Amino acid sequence: MHLPARIGDYTDFYSSIHHATNVGMMFRDKNNALFPNWKHLPVAYHGRASSVVVSGTPIRRPNGQTCPVEGAAPVFGPCRLMDFELEVAFFVGGPPTKLGEPVPVKEAHEHIFGMVLMNDWSARDIQKWEYVPLGPFLAKNVGTSISPWVVTMEALAPFTVDNYKHDLAPFPYLQHGDPYNFDIMLQVDIKPENSVASTVCRSNFKYLYWTPKQQLAHHTITGCNINPGDMMASGTISGETADSYGSMLELSWKGTKPIQLKDGNTRKFLQDNDEVIITGHCQGDGFLIGFGSCTGKILPALPLC
Amino acid sequence: MHLPARIGDYTDFYSSIHHATNVGMMFRDKNNALFPNWKHLPVAYHGRASSVVVSGTPIRRPNGQTCPVEGAAPVFGPCRLMDFELEVAFFVGGPPTKLGEPVPVKEAHEHIFGMVLMNDWSARDIQKWEYVPLGPFLAKNVGTSISPWVVTMEALAPFTVDNYKHDLAPFPYLQHGDPYNFDIMLQVDIKPENSVASTVCRSNFKYLYWTPKQQLAHHTITGCNINPGDMMASGTISGETADSYGSMLELSWKGTKPIQLKDGNTRKFLQDNDEVIITGHCQGDGFLIGFGSCTGKILPALPLC
Repeated sequence: MHLPARIGDYTDFYSSIHHATNVGMMFRDKNNALFPNWKHLPVAYHGRASSVVVSGTPIRRPNGQTCPVEGAAPVFGPCRLMDFELEVAFFVGGPPTKLGEPVPVKEAHEHIFGMVLMNDWSARDIQKWEYVPLGPFLAKNVGTSISPWVVTMEALAPFTVDNYKHDLAPFPYLQHGDPYNFDIMLQVDIKPENSVASTVCRSNFKYLYWTPKQQLAHHTITGCNINPGDMMASGTISGETADSYGSMLELSWKGTKPIQLKDGNTRKFLQDNDEVIITGHCQGDGFLIGFGSCTGKILPALPLC
Repeated sequence: MHLPARIGDYTDFYSSIHHATNVGMMFRDKNNALFPNWKHLPVAYHGRASSVVVSGTPIRRPNGQTCPVEGAAPVFGPCRLMDFELEVAFFVGGPPTKLGEPVPVKEAHEHIFGMVLMNDWSARDIQKWEYVPLGPFLAKNVGTSISPWVVTMEALAPFTVDNYKHDLAPFPYLQHGDPYNFDIMLQVDIKPENSVASTVCRSNFKYLYWTPKQQLAHHTITGCNINPGDMMASGTISGETADSYGSMLELSWKGTKPIQLKDGNTRKFLQDNDEVIITGHCQGDGFLIGFGSCTGKILPALPLC
C-alpha cells in the first residue's frame, strides 16, 4: 500500500464543536469552553507532511518530555497518554494557486478532490508540555495514518446533508448557501494483541461545524497558495453523545472513566500493541460507499539510551 | 532566482531567548516572560512549505480577521501590523531518516547541510486573534522569504563560537559538548518606495540559545522523520540591545516607540511598498563569507470583495 498522493503540505483543522468544547471543558473554563475566535474562523495548524503514513504502518510509542506534576521539573521517557484522533481529511485537487491570491469560497469546490480516513495519533502528555505558545509539534509528528483510497467528492454527492447550524454568522468570505456537509458513518475499534476488536466510538462527519469549503477559503484568505496533493484534515470528529467522542482523551474523560473492552480489559489511553482500526462508509438505498479502513498498531517505545 | 531546494517540510523554531523574553514581557507577565518549557526544549511549530519563496518575490499585505478591541467582535480587512522577522534557516541534508527513529544529537551534524537568510513575514494582528490554542497559522503563510544560496556548514566552520550559556542543563538527548554556534553578522534595512534604505537592526546568529544540532535532535526525538530539502528556521534572532531586535514588534515595542528612518519618516510596522532587505556575512581575517540578501516588498492588500 502507498499514500494516494505526494503530500506537499498537511493542515489539521479543529472543526468539531463537540471535540473543541470537550477539550475546553476538561482543561479550561467549563462555562467558556470555546475560545472567542472559534465560531468566527476554522481554527487550524500546519502539520508535518513527512510523517503522514498509509494505513497499516506501525506507530512507535514516542519518548519525549512531559511535565506530569504542574510546576515541577519535566521528565523524559515513554509517552504515557498515547491517543488516537478520529478524523477525515480531504485532498486538494485542481491547478496550483498563486501566493497572494485567495480562493473564494464559491470556487473552493474546484480544489477539493476527495476524502480519506485519518488517525492523527497524539501523545497527550507531550502535547500538554510542549504546546505553549506555538501549538502542537512533536506530539503529532509521531505519525499520522490515512486510508489508501481517496473517495471523490462526486461519489459523496448523494450523501450530502445540511451544513451544521451556525448560531453566529461568519464573515462573507466564509459564507456559502449550498449544503456541503456529508453523512459519513465513522467507527473506531481497538484490538489488543491476540484479542478481539471492540468498538469504542461511533461518530459521523456531519457533526463538523465548518465545511471543507469554508476551511479551504479560510486557509487561503491571507494569500496562502495550495497545491494538488495537499491534505487538509477535519480535526477530531466527536458527536454529541459520550459514545461518539473521537479520542480516548474524551472517551475516558481525561482518564477518569476507563473504557470497557469486549475481552474484559479496560483502557484509559492506548497500550503497547493495541491496534486502532478506523472505518467509514456512506449508506445508500441498497448500496454503500466504503472508505475502507485506516489502521495502525502501537509498538513499544525504544529503550532510553 | 529559484529556491535552493524543493522544501518538503518547513519548521520554525523560537530559539532566541531575547526575542522570546521580549514577546513574553509585552503580552504576558513581565516577571515570568518565558514559559516554563522554554529552557527545557527548543519550542517550535510546523510552518507552511508551499509559501516559502525566494528573495525578491513581492509579498501581498493580507486581508484577514483581527480583533482590535479585546472582547469585542472581530473585524475583517487588511492587516495593520505587518512585520518582518529576521531569521536564519538551515537545510537538512544527508539521507532521509525513518519514522520512529530519532537522530541522536551526536549524529545531527550529518543532516545539517547549510544555511540561508530568512524573513518570516508576520501579520501580528491576525496572529493575535487566530493563534489560540493551536499556534500561528495564516499570520505566517502569507509568505516566507529566503536567500537563494546555501552557505554550507563547512564554509561556516571558521566562524564557530561558543554555544550560548545555558543556566539549566537540558536532558541528555539535547546535550553536545562541542561548539556549534556561529558568528554571523545580520542586518535589516527598510527602504520605503523611491527613498533610501535605513538600517533598523543589527543582530547576530550567535544570540540563539539552542544550536541547530539541538533543534534537529529535538525535532526527531518522538520519531519524526526528516528528508533532505527540509528547512528548519531559527525563529527571530534578537540580540541584547534595543537596536538588535529582529522584528518591528520589538523595535517599536508593540508600536509605542516609532523607528526613525533616514528620510525623515518613521515606522511602527511596515507600510505598503516598503522593501525589507536582510543581509548577513561572516567576517574573516582579510576575507568574508557573504550570505547575499533576502529581500521582499510589501504590496498593498487586494480590495475587499
